[in-house]
Amino acid sequence: MRGSGDKGGTAPLATALAERLVASRSAPLSALSRRWARDAMLDTVGVTLGGMGEPALQHLLALPGMAGATGRSTLLGIGATTGPLDAALINGTAAHALDYDDCATAAMLHPSAVLVPALLALGEHCGASGRRALLAYVLGFEAAMRIGIASVPAHLHRGWHPSATIGIFGATAAATTLLDLDTEATATALCIAASLASGIGGNIGSMTKPLHCGQAARHGVMAALLAQQGFSARETALDGRNGFFHVFNGLDAPDVDEVLGGWMSPSTIETTELGPKLYPCCGSTHSSIALALKLRREQNIEPDQIAGIDIRINPTRLLNIDTPDPQTPLASKFSLQYVVARALSQGQVRLGDFEGGAFNDPAIRSLMARTSVGGLADGSPKGPVDFRSRLTVRLISGQVLEEAGESGEWRGPRDPLTEDEAWTKFHDCTRRSVTDEAARVGFSALLDLEDSTDIAATLAPFREGALLKFPFSNN
Amino acid sequence: MRGSGDKGGTAPLATALAERLVASRSAPLSALSRRWARDAMLDTVGVTLGGMGEPALQHLLALPGMAGATGRSTLLGIGATTGPLDAALINGTAAHALDYDDCATAAMLHPSAVLVPALLALGEHCGASGRRALLAYVLGFEAAMRIGIASVPAHLHRGWHPSATIGIFGATAAATTLLDLDTEATATALCIAASLASGIGGNIGSMTKPLHCGQAARHGVMAALLAQQGFSARETALDGRNGFFHVFNGLDAPDVDEVLGGWMSPSTIETTELGPKLYPCCGSTHSSIALALKLRREQNIEPDQIAGIDIRINPTRLLNIDTPDPQTPLASKFSLQYVVARALSQGQVRLGDFEGGAFNDPAIRSLMARTSVGGLADGSPKGPVDFRSRLTVRLISGQVLEEAGESGEWRGPRDPLTEDEAWTKFHDCTRRSVTDEAARVGFSALLDLEDSTDIAATLAPFREGALLKFPFSNN
Repeated sequence: MRGSGDKGGTAPLATALAERLVASRSAPLSALSRRWARDAMLDTVGVTLGGMGEPALQHLLALPGMAGATGRSTLLGIGATTGPLDAALINGTAAHALDYDDCATAAMLHPSAVLVPALLALGEHCGASGRRALLAYVLGFEAAMRIGIASVPAHLHRGWHPSATIGIFGATAAATTLLDLDTEATATALCIAASLASGIGGNIGSMTKPLHCGQAARHGVMAALLAQQGFSARETALDGRNGFFHVFNGLDAPDVDEVLGGWMSPSTIETTELGPKLYPCCGSTHSSIALALKLRREQNIEPDQIAGIDIRINPTRLLNIDTPDPQTPLASKFSLQYVVARALSQGQVRLGDFEGGAFNDPAIRSLMARTSVGGLADGSPKGPVDFRSRLTVRLISGQVLEEAGESGEWRGPRDPLTEDEAWTKFHDCTRRSVTDEAARVGFSALLDLEDSTDIAATLAPFREGALLKFPFSNN
Repeated sequence: MRGSGDKGGTAPLATALAERLVASRSAPLSALSRRWARDAMLDTVGVTLGGMGEPALQHLLALPGMAGATGRSTLLGIGATTGPLDAALINGTAAHALDYDDCATAAMLHPSAVLVPALLALGEHCGASGRRALLAYVLGFEAAMRIGIASVPAHLHRGWHPSATIGIFGATAAATTLLDLDTEATATALCIAASLASGIGGNIGSMTKPLHCGQAARHGVMAALLAQQGFSARETALDGRNGFFHVFNGLDAPDVDEVLGGWMSPSTIETTELGPKLYPCCGSTHSSIALALKLRREQNIEPDQIAGIDIRINPTRLLNIDTPDPQTPLASKFSLQYVVARALSQGQVRLGDFEGGAFNDPAIRSLMARTSVGGLADGSPKGPVDFRSRLTVRLISGQVLEEAGESGEWRGPRDPLTEDEAWTKFHDCTRRSVTDEAARVGFSALLDLEDSTDIAATLAPFREGALLKFPFSNN
């Protein structure tokens, strides 16, 4: 049974959104949209392969029955396939487990960690082509960003984790694209998703945070598959009484224009700042890392030349990352002192710097002992988007070097990663879960995703070259 | 990583709740608690077997990979077992699919539709005894009702579907009991559950509504199994910043005494009104049905003696059930005219009255044509708990018969179902999915649940005598 509209003559929001999603499936995608979608998928596959080795994933995979069904959907970095629901859950949790996945600050969410695992798992299940997968990404991104922009800041103030509670709509929109659902079923899928959205901010800082993304990926796939079967939801479940905008945002009605106005003209992915992360640590440290790498590169300085380091950033951002003596790998991701010392010492910041006892490396500790941090005194902070940093390095020679910048190092369409940068990150991530050869072949296949006739073939290296073997306990 | 408390010296609510849950596991259960838990489980197994034949379940079972893993957990009424997560999802959806499951008005939720499927699925997985299952029910009920009472009315005003969003904590508490988790893991499970809670009121009136209960059952089991593995959550995820009470209820802090005060002294199940439904239709019609059955029984009236019927109830409740000409089986569940005509004509109201074309039965339609309904004029409505009804039947002889009552027909500890009443309902439900013989043997085994050494054996008749065969498409 479909409920009757609460809105008089106007179509419910889910229906209006579904009409646009269905219409956009037959419009051509711009080269820029395809490029960005491909790069985001490539980056997300990389961080997923990196996250798959985390303890959270071992726990999840050990649940009875988990990934026990037969199916075509790859568990990335594990030599196994299963059904699309469990694959989306597992890959989605892995995608966010390292906090290394991309971020779209306009809607305060990590879109790809939910979107990509959902569309890969379902795409493999239904034999989607690379082009179809790219289309699903672009339309899923469009839906998630628009619902997100219409939801912030109320959604954040209410305490949700938007990557999951908004991201689910991206996964759902992508899944309806892969299944080519009609307008009514597409609207139903979005309305089912409104009842499956979950994940609270109160669990950020624990393994439950990446689980939110896995659940959202699973549930986007599930909502679309249920709608395909003829499962029903109320057509007003987004904008009607006790619908998503009311329940999650406390809004009587969403700003419909924010959701629908200028739909895909051009696509949001061409105009927003979708930033892949370049360093596997807290985003608040990234501008300082970039300055340190620049200084080292341009001035050719070596650690033993350094007498002292001083770092000044937005004082609000400093709160979480002023960690002079980190005692765990996770804490070292939130140590501004540690990551800048790493960048100055070795000219890069990699996953291995946050594993095992790396945070106790004596040479790095020696540099950290010579480091001071503080808030920028000049000017008032510009809120959460204030990523300003000033780095001063005093050399033993007496020379003082200084760099300043204000980029959060979120790389947008104006400044994409080079293929080398993308490969460096990808390779660093994948060494945890696939062979070097598989990483190379898989990276290359993803670069050519547009030409793939079946994404299951594109992902083959991440099954066949898998290094991880989990203990499955399915009984 | 466990988060640090937001509360200074006081233990986080999840920890305090976990301490009580763990302590209560070794205290003896009163005979009254055991009796109520058994009756609730018996009633819920019945309505689950009834719901398993609904279209919503066929759709759910057709999802790729669904119930595809091997496992010990029974899909009730289907000749198959699977892992505990999918079994909880499927049985939980079936338990609420007929809207025939029990209700606890004090917290405005249907507790057993989430609690029972979760504890049966996990109990079979880990070979729990009947006594352990009863204990899990009583403690799950205690946790859900207390969190529910501390959450209403804000939780309802926010637009949630409490059977799911509160019920998940009952399922989680029950699951931690079956797994015998220690205090820390029990607290973690409750905190994981806070991030898995979902289900909005805006989807009530569609198949997505019972899906909420299935999801909550699945997620209660999942939260406990993850915590057992060592998965982490923030220990303040119930009562801390951006925790459950803040995000779902808009409360800065819960009333801790409502959650913890007088814990299990006596158990809430002994003191609350946990009402099994006696008629498979909208609860607002039940008091009128009871009057009609009483009149027929005591006055020996037959339909062809009746000149006219007049029904007066709380005007607020009338809104949803003044349906003089229902056109679907679902609509006939919300037709006061239809269900009272059924009760007066046949002395009972059964599932078959809401199947196929039963709503068009000419004899019933003839009686409905002689029926008027309206709001009670005397006194002001007493809100949602006002179940008053007055039934007037004019006979062709000129005699006027009148009955009035104010019970919602929620049967509490003061007025339990007789074994005959329980069997009549159970048998009516089970004819859809198991053989008569299996229904009889299974009913008897559930009556003796306390003596069962393995609940998988207790549930065997509902596997071995299953009539339903779903098309599984696991690839």
